[in-house]
Amino acid sequence: MIIARVIGSAVSTVKAGKLSARKLLVVQRATVQNELLDDSPIVAVDAVGAGEGELVLVALGSAGRQTDLTGEAPADATIVGILDSLEVDGRDTFHKS
Amino acid sequence: MIIARVIGSAVSTVKAGKLSARKLLVVQRATVQNELLDDSPIVAVDAVGAGEGELVLVALGSAGRQTDLTGEAPADATIVGILDSLEVDGRDTFHKS
Amino acid sequence: MIIARVIGSAVSTVKAGKLSARKLLVVQRATVQNELLDDSPIVAVDAVGAGEGELVLVALGSAGRQTDLTGEAPADATIVGILDSLEVDGRDTFHKS
Amino acid sequence: MIIARVIGSAVSTVKAGKLSARKLLVVQRATVQNELLDDSPIVAVDAVGAGEGELVLVALGSAGRQTDLTGEAPADATIVGILDSLEVDGRDTFHKS
Amino acid sequence: MIIARVIGSAVSTVKAGKLSARKLLVVQRATVQNELLDDSPIVAVDAVGAGEGELVLVALGSAGRQTDLTGEAPADATIVGILDSLEVDGRDTFHKS
Repeated sequence: MIIARVIGSAVSTVKAGKLSARKLLVVQRATVQNELLDDSPIVAVDAVGAGEGELVLVALGSAGRQTDLTGEAPADATIVGILDSLEVDGRDTFHKS
Repeated sequence: MIIARVIGSAVSTVKAGKLSARKLLVVQRATVQNELLDDSPIVAVDAVGAGEGELVLVALGSAGRQTDLTGEAPADATIVGILDSLEVDGRDTFHKS
Repeated sequence: MIIARVIGSAVSTVKAGKLSARKLLVVQRATVQNELLDDSPIVAVDAVGAGEGELVLVALGSAGRQTDLTGEAPADATIVGILDSLEVDGRDTFHKS
Repeated sequence: MIIARVIGSAVSTVKAGKLSARKLLVVQRATVQNELLDDSPIVAVDAVGAGEGELVLVALGSAGRQTDLTGEAPADATIVGILDSLEVDGRDTFHKS
Repeated sequence: MIIARVIGSAVSTVKAGKLSARKLLVVQRATVQNELLDDSPIVAVDAVGAGEGELVLVALGSAGRQTDLTGEAPADATIVGILDSLEVDGRDTFHKS
């Protein structure tokens, strides 16, 4: 899963299939220190009740449909975890405040 | 899903399998401010009745087949939502006119 | 689907599973004006009877198996349409000659 | 599968579906000489009991769900092997110490 | 499928699921002239009995599981063909020696 920060939200009234009624969040890839990368933001379905500013795990591809909220939905990006902390090389690089 | 703008359309008479009779649109990735990115355009199946110039959500990969129009079609890119608005860092970055 | 030009063909006698007896073409990504991009060529299964020099639509990933010729074949790239024309921003950018 | 080094771990209490109770490791792509590449780290589910510092094989996409621990989990990256050694052009480029 | 050259092999005793007992080869993407590209090598399951130095076709993603040897294995890259020859723009660019 990629590490990403929730930076906003999207509104789309006309949606296909089981994407209806799903919360759509704008996420941008981030480092293990919670710094935004240059990657262009994408829109992900929120399957865990994430909030703006939170560092999350985003599952891409068919993995994004393996949640109760996204099964059979045309979702190729789903927030599947809220990060509490990250540790790299024995040091805490991120801790949810 | 990637954020993309519908910039044109494609005509293909000879198509494989269940791609027949589907509307094919040319889309190009865009920023949350609806500015086109440098990515080369791709062709996506329209599952929501999108029009040229609209900012849309494109589902890539197997997610693109999770709509009534694309089930079992050899489509790896499908327009699955028309964007009404995008909000990033508490500011409206896009509003459908 | 990516827009690509058929630039050649591949011969492979030893092939796995249902890839046997399939026509393999070398394709390179192209712009909407039918100019080749710098992307390295890939090999795609031909599901529509495409010929060298034609501009085609290539479905990547599992979408590539959604044709009569490629079902259950280990194909991650399949030519699923021959382009007749492309129109971008109200102008014809490509017309099959 | 990509070659990657386990560089850390992730803690996420709120996780979707069958991702719960899975060990999440931070991995970064590496060369055949076990040198880290510039690619941003990703988070992978550990299906083989890998430890920090080990060079591993990470399966991306739906392949990541083809293990006993990840079936039906929203995991798009899974550690599916611990590398003992790599040999390129007749020379050992990596040997697990 | 990408065009790649077999440049080595990998040994991994601890492997997940049906990856056990599969031959793992190190492959690097190549041009139609059999020149190595800068892409970092990946590890692919050999489904066709390929040897070091051979130019092969590698299927990525779920396509990699569509062979007798890789069904249900956590393999996202499988060698599915040995290239005999490639022809581009009417010229032979590669011929197996």
